[in-house]
Amino acid sequence: MKSLFLLLPLLLAFTAPTKPTRVVFFGDSITEAGARPGGYILKIQEMLAKQNRAADYELIGKGIGGNKVYDLYLRMEDDVLALKPDVVVIYIGVNDVWHKSTSGTGTDAPKFVKFYEALIRKLQAGGSKVILCTPAVIGERTDNSNEQDGDLNAYSTMIRELATKQNLPLVDLRKAFIDYNLQNNPTNKDRGILTTDRVHLNETGNLFVAEQMLAAIEKR
Amino acid sequence: MKSLFLLLPLLLAFTAPTKPTRVVFFGDSITEAGARPGGYILKIQEMLAKQNRAADYELIGKGIGGNKVYDLYLRMEDDVLALKPDVVVIYIGVNDVWHKSTSGTGTDAPKFVKFYEALIRKLQAGGSKVILCTPAVIGERTDNSNEQDGDLNAYSTMIRELATKQNLPLVDLRKAFIDYNLQNNPTNKDRGILTTDRVHLNETGNLFVAEQMLAAIEKR
Amino acid sequence: MKSLFLLLPLLLAFTAPTKPTRVVFFGDSITEAGARPGGYILKIQEMLAKQNRAADYELIGKGIGGNKVYDLYLRMEDDVLALKPDVVVIYIGVNDVWHKSTSGTGTDAPKFVKFYEALIRKLQAGGSKVILCTPAVIGERTDNSNEQDGDLNAYSTMIRELATKQNLPLVDLRKAFIDYNLQNNPTNKDRGILTTDRVHLNETGNLFVAEQMLAAIEKR
Amino acid sequence: MKSLFLLLPLLLAFTAPTKPTRVVFFGDSITEAGARPGGYILKIQEMLAKQNRAADYELIGKGIGGNKVYDLYLRMEDDVLALKPDVVVIYIGVNDVWHKSTSGTGTDAPKFVKFYEALIRKLQAGGSKVILCTPAVIGERTDNSNEQDGDLNAYSTMIRELATKQNLPLVDLRKAFIDYNLQNNPTNKDRGILTTDRVHLNETGNLFVAEQMLAAIEKR
Repeated sequence: MKSLFLLLPLLLAFTAPTKPTRVVFFGDSITEAGARPGGYILKIQEMLAKQNRAADYELIGKGIGGNKVYDLYLRMEDDVLALKPDVVVIYIGVNDVWHKSTSGTGTDAPKFVKFYEALIRKLQAGGSKVILCTPAVIGERTDNSNEQDGDLNAYSTMIRELATKQNLPLVDLRKAFIDYNLQNNPTNKDRGILTTDRVHLNETGNLFVAEQMLAAIEKR
Repeated sequence: MKSLFLLLPLLLAFTAPTKPTRVVFFGDSITEAGARPGGYILKIQEMLAKQNRAADYELIGKGIGGNKVYDLYLRMEDDVLALKPDVVVIYIGVNDVWHKSTSGTGTDAPKFVKFYEALIRKLQAGGSKVILCTPAVIGERTDNSNEQDGDLNAYSTMIRELATKQNLPLVDLRKAFIDYNLQNNPTNKDRGILTTDRVHLNETGNLFVAEQMLAAIEKR
Repeated sequence: MKSLFLLLPLLLAFTAPTKPTRVVFFGDSITEAGARPGGYILKIQEMLAKQNRAADYELIGKGIGGNKVYDLYLRMEDDVLALKPDVVVIYIGVNDVWHKSTSGTGTDAPKFVKFYEALIRKLQAGGSKVILCTPAVIGERTDNSNEQDGDLNAYSTMIRELATKQNLPLVDLRKAFIDYNLQNNPTNKDRGILTTDRVHLNETGNLFVAEQMLAAIEKR
Repeated sequence: MKSLFLLLPLLLAFTAPTKPTRVVFFGDSITEAGARPGGYILKIQEMLAKQNRAADYELIGKGIGGNKVYDLYLRMEDDVLALKPDVVVIYIGVNDVWHKSTSGTGTDAPKFVKFYEALIRKLQAGGSKVILCTPAVIGERTDNSNEQDGDLNAYSTMIRELATKQNLPLVDLRKAFIDYNLQNNPTNKDRGILTTDRVHLNETGNLFVAEQMLAAIEKR
């Protein structure tokens, strides 16, 4: 009888349904693909399932192709705040840089920061914890000769400074991708290591991002 | 004695100072300059003063150089809604087109419309009446050979369609400027008729815009 | 007998096979497609064949996709002068304007003129008669609201001025296309009248260009 | 007496003034400024004068602001070949990269190489020895976060490959500037170390380039 009483709290801990942590992944086409089969969000789900922890998290992908930071700001209320997420992972920046040269519609550096700050402020005011990511790559060459490397480095620095200043968790995908390529891309290819097309993730890339993301979500 | 009491409310209604209509001019460098000496906002003030109607309106300039439609959206709450204006005149679009070629940071056409619509919605929800303007010119040549004419025409069409669809007053500056130049720019100059530098207003241009704006504000 | 001898040279002149006039069409992807089945160069050939005049002309297409005026200048010696053509039809300008917004690699207006002039000068020095063309369209909307209309009008004006100044034949495709669309594009579509995709010629467009080109070649 | 006559030609050969080596510096605004007081070409002249070797070289600046590789190609005959130089130092590439974002009129990478190769070929055919230079910097930050770093690295790689393939002397200014900044720019400034404005040379920069250039000219 005594042992039963001792076990009771333990039993309750195992049986009481905990509300899962709701995580919204908020981003562009990389995140849109992340919610499809093989995508990084589903891979995080699989990792959790293997650890019998599928119920701990509710993962929701809110990526739209072509999005820039100000697109996130525009649709934040309807697409994210309305869901009252516990955590929002912001993964944006590739198109803000890339569209400068492909259609003349990128985002100026100072405005990138202003919109990013406003986004964080509103999400936090809505009760969400915010995790930042740096934009990984537009081209996987390892000698800093991908056309947008300069800007990607600059915009990543801005995001890192935001994370530091506001004491927010950061998934430094840019650093992680570059380090990975330095180890795994000896012939200086511009795609095919972690991406299919210099930007979007291949199988390895999705797994790689899933690992980085999950670690940050758990550590938050 | 009795009649006097009956008249009193009527007398008060005629003599009590009415609250002036608060109008915010919300835009880019053209509007920023509009609030400076010689600018179109001050010219509207002067026109009203000549008619002894200076007290009817409180005119407030909220233009910032380099602004695009999404910049207005970002600062709308602090800069406009906080003032609880009766009327907001939105005059934006030049930089959305122009920055495509000068820095690769213009605004895609579909996003221009989305942000414009969101801006109108939020301003109206805040209790303001909204007046739209088309972007006047980037170059005053009359043969449609200014580099951005195609885009300015396209973005102006989008704004006209918004005004029609939502039944909002429109100051069609683009049409007005082109018509004026067809009459007054026989040698097809690219500046010097209504602008100093193809974009920003000279004395005549400020007066011209003031007239168009005041007519729309009164008619609203 | 005497009269027969006098007539002989005249008879020979009428019966001897004349060397055909060699015409090189020098341009971009529109001209590259012009030399393929259904293309405008083959259509000119067919028109001549119907008039039993196929032997009068040797038509050679020298178009390469993506070419701008300076690409023509670079390959002029190998691709054109080496063929010692009697006539060179220069049809260039679309990419000089278009690539400004699609890849940041268009051609500045003053340099467009400088290269065009140098091209004419070298082709003429090589013994060829030169025919100029204006760039037709990037978008077939009739209200000057295609994004590049301003620049296309400006670059066409520059080519018209070159033709006038140097007294050279001009195929004013831009004017012809706009006039045709004003008659045949009542719903302001941006493609499908003379082009398949806003730029490249459909069947009607190839026929239309063939007619304009042949007229200019014959009149030269 | 007889022996004296035999010696005479030899004596003359030793004492007669040798014709100076004519060097043309062929480039953009950096080279245009290089021929002005304080510029790198005049600094080379001063260095030679200090060694009493001013007469060994005739240095001619042929830089024009805003020039890209195809501008050099266009004016090569008049501005360079006409002078029959012994050596031509080609210093180009900054605007080919930079103008992509400032006016949409940069140079595509493959065309940059094609024009550069054609330039070398024609200059060599004209009897000149050719020395190549990589484009130094657009921004002096040392962490590869200057906007154009990716492209400058890529275009420099292309020039290095041309030099290797054709066995031509190379002044690798990009590498030299980056190395210098890594030593002398501890606070990651974007200007003020070797440039005044991120691109054009300050006093130290002109001296630095002069040293690099002179070494290559002497070694050629």
